[in-house]
This record gives sequence, C-alpha cells and structure tokens, in this order.
Amino acid sequence: MVIMAVSSSSSTFQPVLDRIAAEIENMPARGRPADYIPALAACDPRRFGMAVAELDGTVYGVGDWRQPLSTQSLTKVFTLALVLAGGGDALWERVGREPSGNPFNSLVQLEYENGIPRNPFINAGALVVTDRLHTQTGDAAGTLLDFLRAESGNAQLASNKDVAASEAAHGDRNAALGHFMASYGNIGNPVPTLLDQYFRQCSIEASCADLALATGFLARHGIRADGTRLLTSSQAKQVNAVMLTCGTYDAAGEFAYRVGLPGKSGVGGGIIAVVPGHCTLCVWSPGLDERGNSVAGVAALERFTTLTGLSVF
Amino acid sequence: MVIMAVSSSSSTFQPVLDRIAAEIENMPARGRPADYIPALAACDPRRFGMAVAELDGTVYGVGDWRQPLSTQSLTKVFTLALVLAGGGDALWERVGREPSGNPFNSLVQLEYENGIPRNPFINAGALVVTDRLHTQTGDAAGTLLDFLRAESGNAQLASNKDVAASEAAHGDRNAALGHFMASYGNIGNPVPTLLDQYFRQCSIEASCADLALATGFLARHGIRADGTRLLTSSQAKQVNAVMLTCGTYDAAGEFAYRVGLPGKSGVGGGIIAVVPGHCTLCVWSPGLDERGNSVAGVAALERFTTLTGLSVF
Amino acid sequence: MVIMAVSSSSSTFQPVLDRIAAEIENMPARGRPADYIPALAACDPRRFGMAVAELDGTVYGVGDWRQPLSTQSLTKVFTLALVLAGGGDALWERVGREPSGNPFNSLVQLEYENGIPRNPFINAGALVVTDRLHTQTGDAAGTLLDFLRAESGNAQLASNKDVAASEAAHGDRNAALGHFMASYGNIGNPVPTLLDQYFRQCSIEASCADLALATGFLARHGIRADGTRLLTSSQAKQVNAVMLTCGTYDAAGEFAYRVGLPGKSGVGGGIIAVVPGHCTLCVWSPGLDERGNSVAGVAALERFTTLTGLSVF
Amino acid sequence: MVIMAVSSSSSTFQPVLDRIAAEIENMPARGRPADYIPALAACDPRRFGMAVAELDGTVYGVGDWRQPLSTQSLTKVFTLALVLAGGGDALWERVGREPSGNPFNSLVQLEYENGIPRNPFINAGALVVTDRLHTQTGDAAGTLLDFLRAESGNAQLASNKDVAASEAAHGDRNAALGHFMASYGNIGNPVPTLLDQYFRQCSIEASCADLALATGFLARHGIRADGTRLLTSSQAKQVNAVMLTCGTYDAAGEFAYRVGLPGKSGVGGGIIAVVPGHCTLCVWSPGLDERGNSVAGVAALERFTTLTGLSVF
Repeated sequence: MVIMAVSSSSSTFQPVLDRIAAEIENMPARGRPADYIPALAACDPRRFGMAVAELDGTVYGVGDWRQPLSTQSLTKVFTLALVLAGGGDALWERVGREPSGNPFNSLVQLEYENGIPRNPFINAGALVVTDRLHTQTGDAAGTLLDFLRAESGNAQLASNKDVAASEAAHGDRNAALGHFMASYGNIGNPVPTLLDQYFRQCSIEASCADLALATGFLARHGIRADGTRLLTSSQAKQVNAVMLTCGTYDAAGEFAYRVGLPGKSGVGGGIIAVVPGHCTLCVWSPGLDERGNSVAGVAALERFTTLTGLSVF
Repeated sequence: MVIMAVSSSSSTFQPVLDRIAAEIENMPARGRPADYIPALAACDPRRFGMAVAELDGTVYGVGDWRQPLSTQSLTKVFTLALVLAGGGDALWERVGREPSGNPFNSLVQLEYENGIPRNPFINAGALVVTDRLHTQTGDAAGTLLDFLRAESGNAQLASNKDVAASEAAHGDRNAALGHFMASYGNIGNPVPTLLDQYFRQCSIEASCADLALATGFLARHGIRADGTRLLTSSQAKQVNAVMLTCGTYDAAGEFAYRVGLPGKSGVGGGIIAVVPGHCTLCVWSPGLDERGNSVAGVAALERFTTLTGLSVF
Repeated sequence: MVIMAVSSSSSTFQPVLDRIAAEIENMPARGRPADYIPALAACDPRRFGMAVAELDGTVYGVGDWRQPLSTQSLTKVFTLALVLAGGGDALWERVGREPSGNPFNSLVQLEYENGIPRNPFINAGALVVTDRLHTQTGDAAGTLLDFLRAESGNAQLASNKDVAASEAAHGDRNAALGHFMASYGNIGNPVPTLLDQYFRQCSIEASCADLALATGFLARHGIRADGTRLLTSSQAKQVNAVMLTCGTYDAAGEFAYRVGLPGKSGVGGGIIAVVPGHCTLCVWSPGLDERGNSVAGVAALERFTTLTGLSVF
Repeated sequence: MVIMAVSSSSSTFQPVLDRIAAEIENMPARGRPADYIPALAACDPRRFGMAVAELDGTVYGVGDWRQPLSTQSLTKVFTLALVLAGGGDALWERVGREPSGNPFNSLVQLEYENGIPRNPFINAGALVVTDRLHTQTGDAAGTLLDFLRAESGNAQLASNKDVAASEAAHGDRNAALGHFMASYGNIGNPVPTLLDQYFRQCSIEASCADLALATGFLARHGIRADGTRLLTSSQAKQVNAVMLTCGTYDAAGEFAYRVGLPGKSGVGGGIIAVVPGHCTLCVWSPGLDERGNSVAGVAALERFTTLTGLSVF
C-alpha cells in the first residue's frame, strides 16, 4: 500500500478535493462540536480534512487529513464487519437492520421491541456487536485496533485513555442501554466489562487518511488491504446497505438523498463513505448538526458526489 | 396500640373478613406468583391473608394475616411519605404525579419526558424517592425499617437478605432506570448505592397486620401511631390521591372502578388500602394478574367495599 | 326540586362560595380561552361562576352561576351514564377505563391498542359512547338534552347551532378519530352521522346551576332528581371512579392531588365535581391551562375542598 | 420504443429471468394476498411475473409479465416524480424523506411530528403528494394515468372502477389519515376529493412490462421514454435514494440488505426496482409477507442482483 498526496496535475481526485476545501472554507455556519465530554467540546469547529483512498491504497487528501480525530461511532462499521467475518449471520438474531427513525441513543424502540436493537449503528446495536466481538475474541477493542492498524498501515493508532475515561464518567446513558438489553438476555458479557470495551473502542484516534484506507475493504467487495478476504462479496454489499439505510442516525434518508453513498458518521465529526468498486472517503469537521452529523462533512460529501457523479444512484 | 383478633361476635369487621375469606377459598383461578426471582416464584398462589386496622390500632384478620410477606412496592408509599415529611414539596420537581398508562418498569415515558418519572409509584419514580430519602437521612432503607417497626409495633421486622441479593442479581432493569435518570441529572447518589438501598427496601418482610397498622397514618390524616404528626392533613390527602390514581401500575383505573379506594400493590402479592377517616387494610395472595396485581387481593378488596359500602365514591 | 340562592346567613355553602369568589377575583392569571373555534375564543377569561347543589336540589351560587356556558366535554359524563343505564356493562368491551396519560385528542394510544380508546372521557372514547347511545336510542343528542332538562328542571336548555356548525367546520381531528376507530370496527354508525350527533352534544349550553343539578344523581348513588333510579349504586360509584382517574385529561393525577374529588372538565371552561353522598358542584371560568382545564375553576374547587374538608380522601 | 421478448440465446437478461422463474416455481411458501378488499384477496398467490426494461425500452419478461396487476403503492413513485417535476422542492416542506420505522398506515409518528409525514411512500405522505399533484394539475389521477400510458407505450392502461369503489368502501384508515393531516393544515383539497383521487390512483392496473418501462426515467437520470427531461439528474438520484430508504415500508433496511436496489412495493404484490444507468425491473406475485411486501417478488429481486451483480452496493 502506498499513501501519497499526489499533485493535482496527475491526480483524479486532488482537484476536486481542493475545490471542495475552498468551498467549505467559505461556509458561514458549521454547527457545534459534541459537548457531552470535554475532549470533544474543545475541538475547533472550523477544522476540516478530507481524504479519498483508491482501491489500490493510493490516498489523496486536503486540509487536516493527516490529523488524528476521535473516531467514535465510525468504529461501529469495523466491529460489525469483524463480527460478521467471525460469526456469520448469527448476529442478526440479536440485532435488526432497519432504520430506527429515532435518535441514536433512544431506549423507546428498544422497549417496544423487547431488547433487540433496530440496527447495529445505533448505540444499543453497537453495544450488542461489541458484546459479541468480545465473546468471539476475548478483546473487542484490541481486535478492532489491530484491524485498523493493519488496514491503514499505521501502527501508531491507539485509543486515547483520557477520552475513554471521560466517556466512562459520562456513560450513564450507555450503561442504561447495556443494563436494559441485559434485562432481556441480549448481552453476554458483564455490563461493566462491555462498557469498558465500548468506551475504549470509541476513543480510538485515527486520521482521515487512516480511516479512508481502513474502509477500503467495503469498496473492494470484502478484500482487505493485504489481499486476503475479510467478508464475502455478499456480506460487503450487506454492510454497505446497512450503512446507507442506518449509518447517519435519524438522518439516513436525508444523507442518502443529498449524498447518495453508504456512509457512517461519528460525534467526533468524522464521516466515512464508500463508492463500491471505486474508492472510499473520510471527511472530518467537528461541528455537528442537531442530529449529530458533521455539517461541513455532509456538505463536502454532497459536493463530491455532485462534482464526480460517483453516487450509487 | 393493641393488636388483637377480636371474636366475630363483638367485631365490626371480623364477619366480613370471614365471609370474604370463604368466598376467596372458592375462587378457581388466582393468577401466578411473580417469577423474576426464585424467592417470589416459590410462593403458593393459594395463600391468602387479610387484615383491617381501625384508627385506634385495633386489628382484625383472617387467613395468613400474621404471615410475613415480601413487601416489594408497598414500601413506595412509606418512602414517599417519609420524603414529603422530611423535605416538603421539593420532591415534585423531580417526579410527577400523573398516572403513567404504561407498565411499572417502562422506560418509554421516561425518555419522552426527559428523565422525570410520571409518578412516585412506578419503579423509576420510586428510585427517585429512595434517592432523595437517602440524601435526607443517609440511610433510606434503615429509616424506612425504623418507621415500619414503630408504626406496626413489631420490632422484629427486617429485610430478607437473600431476597435483596436475588433482586440485585436480577436487577438489570432497575439499573437501567437508575442510569437512565442519572443521565438526565435526576439521581443524586451513585447508582450502585441507590440500587443497594432500593433492593433492601423492597426486601423488607411484614405481615398483613403489620402493614395495615403501618398504613394507619393515611387514614388518620397524617397522624402516626404514637399521636405525633408525620404529614399535614393536606399531605395525607395528597398521598391518598396519588395512591388512587397511580397505585396499581397501569390498572389504576380498573382498581378505582372495582374497589374505589386508594391502594398500592406489590409483586409480592400484597395490597394496602386506605378508607380515610375509618380504617386501613392489607391483603395478601401471591398470584398476580398480567399487570402485576394480586388476583385474590383485588377481588377481596372489591368484596370488602361492596359489603361494607366503605368506598370513597 | 327547589332552586334557590339562600342568603349566606342561613346557608352552609353560601359563605364559602362568596369567599372563594372573592379570592378568585384577585387571581392575577387565569389562562386563555380555547381558540379552536371562534365562539369559545371570544369568551372573557375573567368570567367566573360557581354553584353547589345539595342532594335535595337546593342550589347555592356565586358570580355567573346562572349564565349559560358551552358544556363541551362535561356532557361525556351524562352520555356515559345514559349508555350504562341503557345497556349495562357491554360498553366496556369497546372502551377501557384507564387514565390515558396523553392529551385528550391523541391518536397514538388508539393505534397501539387497536382502536379501543383508553377511557370514555378522552375524545375517542366519548365518540364510542355517543355512537352506542345513538344506536340505543336513535337520537343521542336528543336523549342527552332531554335528560339534562329533566335533571336541571330547566326546559330551556338547548344546543347552540352556531357552535355546533363551528365545531363541524373545525372537526378534522374528531373526524380522524371516528374514521380511525371505524377502521378497527369499533364504530357502529356512519362516521358523519356520529360526528353530527357529537357536535350537537358538545354544543349544549347550560348554567352552573343547571349542571350542578344535573350531576346530582352521582352524589345520590344513582337516583335521579325525580326519585327514580338511573344507575345502580355500584354503577354510580364506578362513574365517579372513572371521573376521578380520567376526568381531566392528562391532568387527572394533578386534579386528584389538588382537589380530591371526582371531576370532569370541558374546554368551555366548565368543571363538574361530585362529593358522594353530600353535594355536586359546577364551576365555570373560560381561561384554560395548557392541558385544557379551567385555571380559575380548578383553583376554586381546590379552595372548596380545603375550606370545607369535603374531599374523598 | 420496442417491446420484445428476445430469445434467451441473444439476450442478456432472458436466461437469468428464466432461471429465477424456475427457482420461484419451487418456493414452498409465498405469503398471503392482501385481504382488506375482495379484489385483492381473490388473487392466486402462486402467480408470478417479472420484467426487465433496458434503457432503450427493450423489455424481457417471464411468467405473467404481461398480465395487468393492481399497481397500488407503486404509483407513489410516479406521483412523487410528477410533483417534483411540476413544483420543485416546495413539496419537502410538507413531507419528510426519512424512513419511518413504522407500518405504512401508522398515525403514531404523524402525531408526534405535527402532521408532517415521514416520507412520500407511507400512505400519509402519498396523500400529501397526491393532494399537491391535484392542486398543480386539477386532476391528479388523470395526470398520472397519462404519464403511465406515455412511458409504457400502452394506451389501454386504466383505473379499475370496481377496485376504486372497494378501496373507498374500506377507506376509513386513509380517511383518518387525511382528516388528521387536514387538522394540521397539511392538506389543500377537501378530504373527500383527495380520497377519491387517491383511490383512483391506487386502482390503476398495468403489467410488469408496462411498469418496468414506466420506471425507466429513473434509470435514465430523469429522461422520459420520448427523450424529453422529466427530472434533473439530481432529482432522479434523489427519488432513487428515497426509494431505497423508504420504498418498502418498515422493511426498507431488509430490502436494501437483501436486494441492494432502490425499490417500491405495493400491496397488489408488485415491486418496481431501478439499476441506475442500466435497467429497471418490475416483479409481481400477490402473496405478501407480514410487512406487505411480495414474498416471491423480493426473493426474485434478490436472486437477480446476486446472479447479475447489478446491485448499487
């Protein structure tokens, strides 16, 4: 794998990235950073980075594209893929794959549906996925970190312990989700163990370049960076489908409408997106809209698909 | 205070109790004991006891009326009264007083209403009450136990440690409620501390006689067994009102319709009820209906108000 | 029956009514009249009347107690009683008797519960009651009017056609409720017929004196003004119970807590209340709180039960 | 435009259609036809037809692919496109574009969201679209019929009057939706007028061949069969996105997961689907699953994308 910022003269994607960055520079409002933990609240909402990785690992970038960001919910894509790779379809007995139509941390639907989360990308569903990955591997967060390091080629990737501690200190809502599902028998590990794994997972830091590369297997129909297969072609298609319908909380319809790509957002301001068979993207800007998606990030991806025509629709 | 089973010849209530017990004896179906913990599941659903306490402490009883039962949610009435006595109306900023229209352990409404429970008798609301009592006294469960001992005149009352441990082992739903409200800032103590207090509170065992006597202050407009005042007359009326509208989970309307008294049920099969200015009752039979109320208990109270005309309506 | 305003010197209730009226006079805020139809929106929120009827038909009053008001939802109590009198308990297969915990015109619960309204006092339930009364009698609104005239001794009572027309013109929400329940097979008459009856029912005008008298049968354990029996004693108790738990929309708990009487409010600003075995009340003031209950009306009733001690608790 | 069934030797799609039809033939269970109106309930659940239309209007088919079926909700795609073509984006102020997570005829979300339907493909949203098309054109159902005839090249297409009458006779739920939204001011035409248009729209009959052709503009980025432009390229992409996230009721995630194409189902057993830039499909089999989607239809589309690799993911 070769990571390189190719000059705009020889690149397919560099000019479009440069143009998008210039446009974003002039955006008047960019939302507000997540404020539930100090580490995220302190982010400058005007920061912006974007990276595109081609199937062969070539990466183009602009702005803060090499700056580590807090991955948060972006990691839910990777844990889902790892669980599917490790255990096949048994996961789907414990979590659904329908859009929730509710905020990411809602307990309402969970109660109406007897502790089975709607999909693996709302917090409840992600907890079920991490619970299962931990049962499969004995170390969910470590397994995830190894995977991200391998796919990005960046052995320095790590979880930020201060962020993890801060997540734990403000973790009552996730603790409620965990205990609630445990009351329905849908959690296999002790809730405190699960929460520890989950907070470590969410606190992993990686750059746009790292994350665009790590997402590559979803554009390569299941093939990892080293050429081995993680998912079947059918499974890779399925993960992309779940990203498109459920990847941006209760704004998935809006994201599909505007961007037209499978994508997953995180409250750290990152969004990863997939153009199957073509490339993967990661964009970062910490200012969020009211539904928790990066304002400049969604705008940049919308411009990307409009300028390149690389939508799935 | 004098506890005595007066012979039916000289008693107002003994004949009616005897008649009710005879009728209950012939009830074909009596529901099923609560099965979420072994201690309750093992109860014989055909057991039945009933006691009536007059304002002066005279008690009449029938059946298993001296047999200790697991008080469970019956205790919510006493903790509410103790908090109101200790802190006045500030409690009502943290818990409402409307019927919930939902099962006793639901989280749905709690989310729609930002962590403020509908009333103090659903589990979420009772946790808020216990949380506040613990803050006021430093020992919520101990304060409650002292109160019950004093009012019943039974110094032997105690919490059953095995039941408390079993509640804790099956306490995920209550843990979820606690953490969920904590995420809204509506819990003042650490959630594990609160849960420990709450499970000890629920595990207190007392007989129908004990509980009918302990409820007496609500029929005496706030006056305790020793003649001192716990609640103002207005507060006592208010507690009775909350019992009538919210005391039997999502069957409060049905209970008011059939029985016509302020009452509070528990999953141990007990129900306490108040005839303001006249007497208090406690009935016990472990078989529950689908909403968690004692089948024979409700039937017995309905017969009592029909036979004596002592309804509030 | 004798209607008379006894001078305060010889009356039990006149001094307390005079005192309450004087206190209400000084209330700074009295809410806002209902504004969904012009006829109600035009009411002066500072108007106030209150009447108490003793069991023998003696009436005491203060303020605008002889002024006709738009009865609106107050009529739901009388149609319920008439249906129960005519058809016994079969009604309860088509409507529940639990507090709804939701606004009076909500469709949410109705959908979760397959078209069976929670209770007869939310709009959906009242439509079911009127539908049944119309089936029983062939003229629901006419039957109701005859009953109110007989009980009040006021043959002049009538439906206001302008108000009924205005209700119909703004009746989309009620039409939605009717069609929705019809889709579940819970309406027996054509929806337009039902709505016409319902709007005529709601548009009946009567004074506080008329309404306090008309409610008398609920304090007399089912006996009408002419001494004949409308309801069994048990049915009268049951109607009172439903009023207490469901009579003031999603503020029933609050009303029970503050007032402590079975009561029913209407968006015309009227509230009727029952002291079983003692007397009945009607209070009127058009300014409503956000839940649709008269602000001055609730305050006046709260003062009444505090001053007289005539609460059911 | 040329409609022809090319022999399997010279065709891209004929062999795959033949293979799918053979597999479907052996499916043991195929669901149950919709039973809310007799016309649909009478359909044989074992009927099966499938057609694929290439961009140039070449059509391949198998089974009952020339047999007229009741289009029902399939028409919602075309009315949406016609409104967007006629009025641009103003529609989106009156209807959202998020998956609902609820059944197609639910009123629950509509109440929580003040009469603004979640998306144009649930019944409430489709009523808003038809309401607007009727305002734009004065004849919503006629405009739609003209469009379908032109795109399919089949001038015989018509609405089935018996089916329309049957829909109207069983139309209480849709009447409830219409009146409910009217109560929020979100319907511009009289509700009875709107319902008449809507039932005529739903009763249009067309074959798989007709419908695959009529959907062609969504694969041609907005270009109609005659080469004129109906939608901008961006609008066509957006309609496809809404189909993918909202087109199959509360099974949109499952459909995306299994099939991976923008699609829209109807209770008549039809499903239309789009492979942007490649082709369009219509499949028909009257047996439905519990969420209202054709069992054999979804299975056939899943096989199609698996066998051809023509998923968007």
